[in-house]
Amino acid sequence: MAKLGFVGLGTMGGQMVNRLLSKGHSVTGYNRTRKKAEWLIEKGMIWGDSPRAVAAASDIVFAMVTNSAALAAIMEGPDGLLAGIGAGKIFSDISTVSPTVSRGFAAKVREKGADMVDSPVSGSVITLQEGKLSVMVGGRRETFERLKPTLLDIGPKVTYVGDNGLALSMKIAVNLSLAVQMMAFSEGVLLAEKSGITRETAVEVLTHSAVASPMIQYRGPFVLQQPEEAWFDVNMMQKDMVLAMDLGRQLDVPLPTTSASNEFLTAARGMGWDKYDFAVMFDVLAKMSGVKTGIAK
Amino acid sequence: MAKLGFVGLGTMGGQMVNRLLSKGHSVTGYNRTRKKAEWLIEKGMIWGDSPRAVAAASDIVFAMVTNSAALAAIMEGPDGLLAGIGAGKIFSDISTVSPTVSRGFAAKVREKGADMVDSPVSGSVITLQEGKLSVMVGGRRETFERLKPTLLDIGPKVTYVGDNGLALSMKIAVNLSLAVQMMAFSEGVLLAEKSGITRETAVEVLTHSAVASPMIQYRGPFVLQQPEEAWFDVNMMQKDMVLAMDLGRQLDVPLPTTSASNEFLTAARGMGWDKYDFAVMFDVLAKMSGVKTGIAK
Amino acid sequence: MAKLGFVGLGTMGGQMVNRLLSKGHSVTGYNRTRKKAEWLIEKGMIWGDSPRAVAAASDIVFAMVTNSAALAAIMEGPDGLLAGIGAGKIFSDISTVSPTVSRGFAAKVREKGADMVDSPVSGSVITLQEGKLSVMVGGRRETFERLKPTLLDIGPKVTYVGDNGLALSMKIAVNLSLAVQMMAFSEGVLLAEKSGITRETAVEVLTHSAVASPMIQYRGPFVLQQPEEAWFDVNMMQKDMVLAMDLGRQLDVPLPTTSASNEFLTAARGMGWDKYDFAVMFDVLAKMSGVKTGIAK
Amino acid sequence: MAKLGFVGLGTMGGQMVNRLLSKGHSVTGYNRTRKKAEWLIEKGMIWGDSPRAVAAASDIVFAMVTNSAALAAIMEGPDGLLAGIGAGKIFSDISTVSPTVSRGFAAKVREKGADMVDSPVSGSVITLQEGKLSVMVGGRRETFERLKPTLLDIGPKVTYVGDNGLALSMKIAVNLSLAVQMMAFSEGVLLAEKSGITRETAVEVLTHSAVASPMIQYRGPFVLQQPEEAWFDVNMMQKDMVLAMDLGRQLDVPLPTTSASNEFLTAARGMGWDKYDFAVMFDVLAKMSGVKTGIAK
Repeated sequence: MAKLGFVGLGTMGGQMVNRLLSKGHSVTGYNRTRKKAEWLIEKGMIWGDSPRAVAAASDIVFAMVTNSAALAAIMEGPDGLLAGIGAGKIFSDISTVSPTVSRGFAAKVREKGADMVDSPVSGSVITLQEGKLSVMVGGRRETFERLKPTLLDIGPKVTYVGDNGLALSMKIAVNLSLAVQMMAFSEGVLLAEKSGITRETAVEVLTHSAVASPMIQYRGPFVLQQPEEAWFDVNMMQKDMVLAMDLGRQLDVPLPTTSASNEFLTAARGMGWDKYDFAVMFDVLAKMSGVKTGIAK
Repeated sequence: MAKLGFVGLGTMGGQMVNRLLSKGHSVTGYNRTRKKAEWLIEKGMIWGDSPRAVAAASDIVFAMVTNSAALAAIMEGPDGLLAGIGAGKIFSDISTVSPTVSRGFAAKVREKGADMVDSPVSGSVITLQEGKLSVMVGGRRETFERLKPTLLDIGPKVTYVGDNGLALSMKIAVNLSLAVQMMAFSEGVLLAEKSGITRETAVEVLTHSAVASPMIQYRGPFVLQQPEEAWFDVNMMQKDMVLAMDLGRQLDVPLPTTSASNEFLTAARGMGWDKYDFAVMFDVLAKMSGVKTGIAK
Repeated sequence: MAKLGFVGLGTMGGQMVNRLLSKGHSVTGYNRTRKKAEWLIEKGMIWGDSPRAVAAASDIVFAMVTNSAALAAIMEGPDGLLAGIGAGKIFSDISTVSPTVSRGFAAKVREKGADMVDSPVSGSVITLQEGKLSVMVGGRRETFERLKPTLLDIGPKVTYVGDNGLALSMKIAVNLSLAVQMMAFSEGVLLAEKSGITRETAVEVLTHSAVASPMIQYRGPFVLQQPEEAWFDVNMMQKDMVLAMDLGRQLDVPLPTTSASNEFLTAARGMGWDKYDFAVMFDVLAKMSGVKTGIAK
Repeated sequence: MAKLGFVGLGTMGGQMVNRLLSKGHSVTGYNRTRKKAEWLIEKGMIWGDSPRAVAAASDIVFAMVTNSAALAAIMEGPDGLLAGIGAGKIFSDISTVSPTVSRGFAAKVREKGADMVDSPVSGSVITLQEGKLSVMVGGRRETFERLKPTLLDIGPKVTYVGDNGLALSMKIAVNLSLAVQMMAFSEGVLLAEKSGITRETAVEVLTHSAVASPMIQYRGPFVLQQPEEAWFDVNMMQKDMVLAMDLGRQLDVPLPTTSASNEFLTAARGMGWDKYDFAVMFDVLAKMSGVKTGIAK
């Protein structure tokens, strides 16, 4: 069994390591703040002192960080992942970053004799815990085949999408609909509510209708009550919208509903609500409609 | 068992009558062109010479017509439904029209001693044939209770939403998401495709993702191949978008993604594609992106 | 000199009559509330008891009312303008209504042996008082030629645009830019302000820049201080936007910035600010940006 | 009289140097391709071999380059402007780049004992040649005062806006309206044209209306005939829109009409029309409306 490494032990990354440990894998892990890693060390994870140390100790290294800047931070420098990776190893990056950035790092990884794929996942922590996460992979097919058995221990659905960067493009193509669907849902709820239907009934009907995607089913009720902790906050959602819009400009694809929805994420921040789940788009539109919510007074 | 009447025997209306006949109901039906009714007469439907005749012969009358103008045409005048309806009867209007128009007719029906509800359905002909159609009802609760057993013979899910017009408001609140979700889906497919992923793979991934609503699951593949006959064409979809926008203006609810998407339905007509299923929004965006499709050359 | 009639003596209509009287014309006028006409009667205007009476007493009748419904109210019925108009007379309608509605009335006017043109004006009360108003005319060219000398006493620029309804189409085509330019101006002011420039400086620079249309020059400062009385309030502006969007749908012209801006007029109403000049779009955007204004607290 | 330097001798930069020479200034100039500088050398400009050489030879150095990357290219490295600048000198950057990037270079310039301002201009080459260009300045006020007499030889209107970066913010705040106003203008022209008014008449009326900003007056006729050479092409315009949207996200200002219009610049590129003046947005909308133009067939 390959020795695994994992850089970035936040909510999602931590749960992935937990899952890999429970499947019997040996995992060396690193996180910028060690404190968040304690519970995993107790479960048997080996602590690595740096991304370099993790890469040096592992056959397959995963990373799960916030954005392109965070990825650069763990890749480069004397303690970076690139300094520790070598011939025959695989770097599987789960972070959602720009496809161009990812391709740039793949080239650098190959200069070291190793290989890299982009392997973003679709779904939330809950999807992961339920064992239903899906993983998309972009890179060389032979690397994908070597990696696949390990990825199947993260989630049951592993899809090869094509060359490096394409799994990221596909992920971005999915994620733009998250915000747009949430926005259209909010428009519908407020139309129903101001017509005289209770918000609860409107949510009930919409989350059981032809437009009830899995995302709408779980996030729709957030317009009644935000979760205690944001599942995917305004800034995280906007990061993906910006990746989509950058890609759209680069590839000459107009994105009218993506850009219209994105302005409401900006407005959420303008109104001081950026720490909420991005379902708070509803509250922005409610405010503009003169409707009170738990958040919009 | 109540004697039923049905005005408007187009694709959807005709299949509803077929279903009611198969459940053993007696149905008197009328359609502007009798020819479309022949197959139902062969199955036992009684022909009524006018909306008035249908209303006179029935305890419960249904109507399923295209828009407010068509509804006015069957309601008013010497041969109209209002001329035939009388004490104790129920008019259940399945058409998608403006809530205000519907409330106006409800008042006139009540002047005749009868009662009216708006009872729009959510779902396509296929949903109906599979016996999965859901019906929403707006009107007096006691009328709803009397009507409910008959509605259950049309579809298995019958929901009381509130006063007259509210089922229409709810339907409109659902339908605006149809066009918006289709638009966001198109943006995603084109981003993926211009990244280098095949259109087929992009559709496959998106229709199995967190944003795959039932509508996206069945209509998403239309971007690969339009159906032989439009399920819901550009003009029908735009009619509902306009109902949403009228309601939004009336109730002071801004509808940013609804209005952004609606412009692409207008563009579809500008490009001469109005007879296609509204999934042709994809082809409009493809044209703007310099991508060829079966429709956009 | 032709005897003139004028129906609708609101702010704009009243000032036009005042101007016509000062040029030596004989004017018979009518307004729904006579009180608003007193100052003009003092200046020599003859009071007419109804639109019919005004039409009967005049060679050329003008009307200036709020919308299609108000136009129908003065045209139809036993006391309506149509009942008083006859052979050889001209009806010059200054109201901004839908081109289709206007064409419908033109046909009815012709049945009476008279003729009608649509003659909307571009500019505000101040433009009128400064003698700079421009008038566009749609209708038969010979009628335009007969009417032109009188129109030149209203404003110095009289343009023949084409057949009936076309002056209205042209007016609508101008007016949609009012709201869109105001919206873009607001976006610019807020960007500058949150960058650290004072709102006053931002307005000063923008109102002297390449994007400073006459409208931006006079309305731009409203974001510093709303006028005591709205020049053109939210609902009036939205009425014209809706005329544009209806025309766009009818003629298959997508209107992306018109529809995006229109949603902010709806939002202004949702926030309770509909009585302000439509420059209050700025305050809506300010609220969404977390910026305080005299209106957005 | 201060010795002047100028880096970047494209259309605009070259004409500025020409103007400065004609006012009697000594100017040392550099351009990536020397060929474009020949006509200026003939007029008395001294050739500098690198940005460093220009900075070393001058008291006041101007730069006019395309974007942040081009600015970095002339600033950094052994031959860069930073290597040649020293105590008491002023760097006045006319380029339109991000305020953040500009502030970064200002800090580096100060480390050398010199000072930097951002001094973007508003207006076209023609405005410059007519001697009507306006210049906005961001930076220390005392540096502005020293620089002002020289700037007045470029254009007659020189405005101090505030700290470093603020002139750029103000410029961006102006420029977003360029694209939005052009888009709304296009919507208006097409509404008029499909109503039955000729495109020429529509342009004539709109360019003399309340919405006729200077930009609309000179660029409006481009929808009849694109200029032989783009005044400001699709990509240049989009660069400024992206600066606006980046700033909007950074400062939490939603930009609904900016982002809606920007998608039409992307579409222009998707349709292969990126080398045209950005007025080609009209042709994109014309295509979507089924209207032919010289460009949209």
